[in-house]
Amino acid sequence: MPSFDTLPSADGLWTGLTGLDGQPCAIAVQGGQIAWTGAPDAVPAGHAALPQHAGQGALVTPGLVDCHTHLVYGGQRANEFAMRLAGASYEEVAQAGGGIVSSVRATREATEEELFASASARLQSLLAEGVCAIEIKSGYGLALEHERKQLRVARRLATAHGVTVRTTFLGAHALPPEYVGRSGDYIDLVCREMLPALHAEGLVDAVDVFCERIAFSLAETEQVFRAAQALGIPVKLHAEQLSDMGGAALAARYGALSCDHIEHLSQEGIDAMAAAGTVAVLLPGAYYTLRDTQLPPIAALRAAGVPMAVSTDHNPGTSPALSLLLMANMACTLFRLTVPEAIAGITTHAARALGLQATHGAIAAGMPANFVLWKLQDAAELAYWFGQRPVRCVVRQGRIAEGAA
Amino acid sequence: MPSFDTLPSADGLWTGLTGLDGQPCAIAVQGGQIAWTGAPDAVPAGHAALPQHAGQGALVTPGLVDCHTHLVYGGQRANEFAMRLAGASYEEVAQAGGGIVSSVRATREATEEELFASASARLQSLLAEGVCAIEIKSGYGLALEHERKQLRVARRLATAHGVTVRTTFLGAHALPPEYVGRSGDYIDLVCREMLPALHAEGLVDAVDVFCERIAFSLAETEQVFRAAQALGIPVKLHAEQLSDMGGAALAARYGALSCDHIEHLSQEGIDAMAAAGTVAVLLPGAYYTLRDTQLPPIAALRAAGVPMAVSTDHNPGTSPALSLLLMANMACTLFRLTVPEAIAGITTHAARALGLQATHGAIAAGMPANFVLWKLQDAAELAYWFGQRPVRCVVRQGRIAEGAA
Ligand SMILES: [Zn+2]
Ligand SMILES: [Zn+2]
Repeated sequence: MPSFDTLPSADGLWTGLTGLDGQPCAIAVQGGQIAWTGAPDAVPAGHAALPQHAGQGALVTPGLVDCHTHLVYGGQRANEFAMRLAGASYEEVAQAGGGIVSSVRATREATEEELFASASARLQSLLAEGVCAIEIKSGYGLALEHERKQLRVARRLATAHGVTVRTTFLGAHALPPEYVGRSGDYIDLVCREMLPALHAEGLVDAVDVFCERIAFSLAETEQVFRAAQALGIPVKLHAEQLSDMGGAALAARYGALSCDHIEHLSQEGIDAMAAAGTVAVLLPGAYYTLRDTQLPPIAALRAAGVPMAVSTDHNPGTSPALSLLLMANMACTLFRLTVPEAIAGITTHAARALGLQATHGAIAAGMPANFVLWKLQDAAELAYWFGQRPVRCVVRQGRIAEGAA
Repeated sequence: MPSFDTLPSADGLWTGLTGLDGQPCAIAVQGGQIAWTGAPDAVPAGHAALPQHAGQGALVTPGLVDCHTHLVYGGQRANEFAMRLAGASYEEVAQAGGGIVSSVRATREATEEELFASASARLQSLLAEGVCAIEIKSGYGLALEHERKQLRVARRLATAHGVTVRTTFLGAHALPPEYVGRSGDYIDLVCREMLPALHAEGLVDAVDVFCERIAFSLAETEQVFRAAQALGIPVKLHAEQLSDMGGAALAARYGALSCDHIEHLSQEGIDAMAAAGTVAVLLPGAYYTLRDTQLPPIAALRAAGVPMAVSTDHNPGTSPALSLLLMANMACTLFRLTVPEAIAGITTHAARALGLQATHGAIAAGMPANFVLWKLQDAAELAYWFGQRPVRCVVRQGRIAEGAA
């Protein structure tokens, strides 16, 4: 992997581009920032003389944003996937070391170097497809030193790959084996020790909880939210994936950036999210892998004006997905999002779900240069083909990170 | 695109490989053929001195085989995809020029060069993932000159890309607009003029029919099969996708290579296929795109010992899929194939569905060198991750066509 700093600068005038609206456009990049964007016949005199990158009609979009991932973990669970298909019961899978516990064990056993190497390979798959900002959660360490290790790896990935990373502390992902029957004690540990320590080390951009019958209760969720609020850290929530726990309404009261999964979200939850400006993050990869049949309430979210984002939910158990474009296709095919909704879901609304709307998810003067040129003409093709890799060129953090104009 | 003939030869001893069984293995390639394969400590003296390609532990599989595609067509239907999601009715889509008729029109309007260029781009997506043999059907021309154009493009793709292509004449795909109400006349044309002419030009490796209430009847299907039989051309069938028409049993009586789709296949059809050695081709991409809920009878096929293949069914209407590995994941996730079944489905059984079992779908002495090295350790990872592109190196027709050892 070449050092990100040695990649060619994207400075110059990008011409011959086709915008999402199908209209010709141009982008001027100076000092790694978007200095101007507009119609090709309206390039300001100061930019017209810049060195040119000729897009030859390529469709251009903002850099993609993957706003919900569990990208850093030890091992993988392909063997468990194979065992289940071969007819193994949950007990047999558990006896063979499967389930989330196996990811916790493998993550605890892995060194920071090992976690960095395996997550780097997965990250590269997403970056090659045009991802320019990504959220990465902890939650497979479930002990201070191991949660720290995950979050440190997430920070290192940002530097090594020249990609914007938002870290999320998800200590309240699952009850660690050594706390079985002592959920309250573990949540105390999360709130009183783990979160303050990791926050003090600058490792926590947001705090998340898995609020579900099989994970943590509404009261435990609120305890974690209060601890985050006291430290001034924004919150988000794994909410109403398997049942309606009322988590979304609680999260909205705490001004959550997003509520994620939400297959069982109620109208009350939708109204609370709309009022709070909370983003709904849809995760069709998990829906698909789990063969879920409970669709998220898309029509009601649309009617309420709740912004919808779409993400991979990359994780080794329920969504080993390595393509955000495939998630856009699944959001259309399985959830019936429109194509413009799916595209906004992996760009502007995903950026908003991370609090990054000022710097990501759009092509606008003053933003860092993060955009993608595609081997496509029509924006609908981004969601229509599936299993494709249609990137022509990725400009990430002001550098030409993949391909060429 | 570099000329295929200028790609480096794969001749030499490929070592440090891991087979599908997890055991170390080696492959000797001479003159573009597999001269020997076996355990690394059993390399015959004559091969031990060959120049070495070091696999460094990489998983190796046979080259992939995509045994059911409609890869050559004019235009694409992303706009129709977007319109439907935006709530357009079938009538509105049809008025805007959508549906299969639009692909027929665009295919008829396209020049051979245009069809070659657009199909080449799609083919490259599949080749980059390790496909070494592919079936390509006609069926969007629906008139002699345009069916010829499609099949000629398929032959050119083989030469230009150094890939094995099996052409299938699917004149009986849909009733062309100019024959509405005259289905019998069109089938006569297919049998008496189109098929003999295209066969005489060496363009037809197999004959296929879309046997369905919305397409052609069982009697019309048999008429086409008889015409094929008279010319000594093997048959296959789009069978029981939307309803049980009894097509599979008919096809089996004609010794069909494969019956494809088969969501509504009866036990009688399964028994007939088993007796005839006909392959069941599963097409999860179409099942997914159509949000079908009728699963093919996997357990009964398995019990009857019918070999199951898995393919993209690439087509612009119901499966714009550009990844065969994703189909393996979908076959597992949606159809509950086991991982070994899914892998056999895109290699050995797919080769058999094309009558290519002597030359493709396996790594064996005497076969042309078609194999793939993966950035994976465990065979189950081929189907576990989705949206991935884990190819390390593709050896196709004895040349190193992608990546390097
Ligand atoms: Zn998650
Ligand atoms: Zn088909």
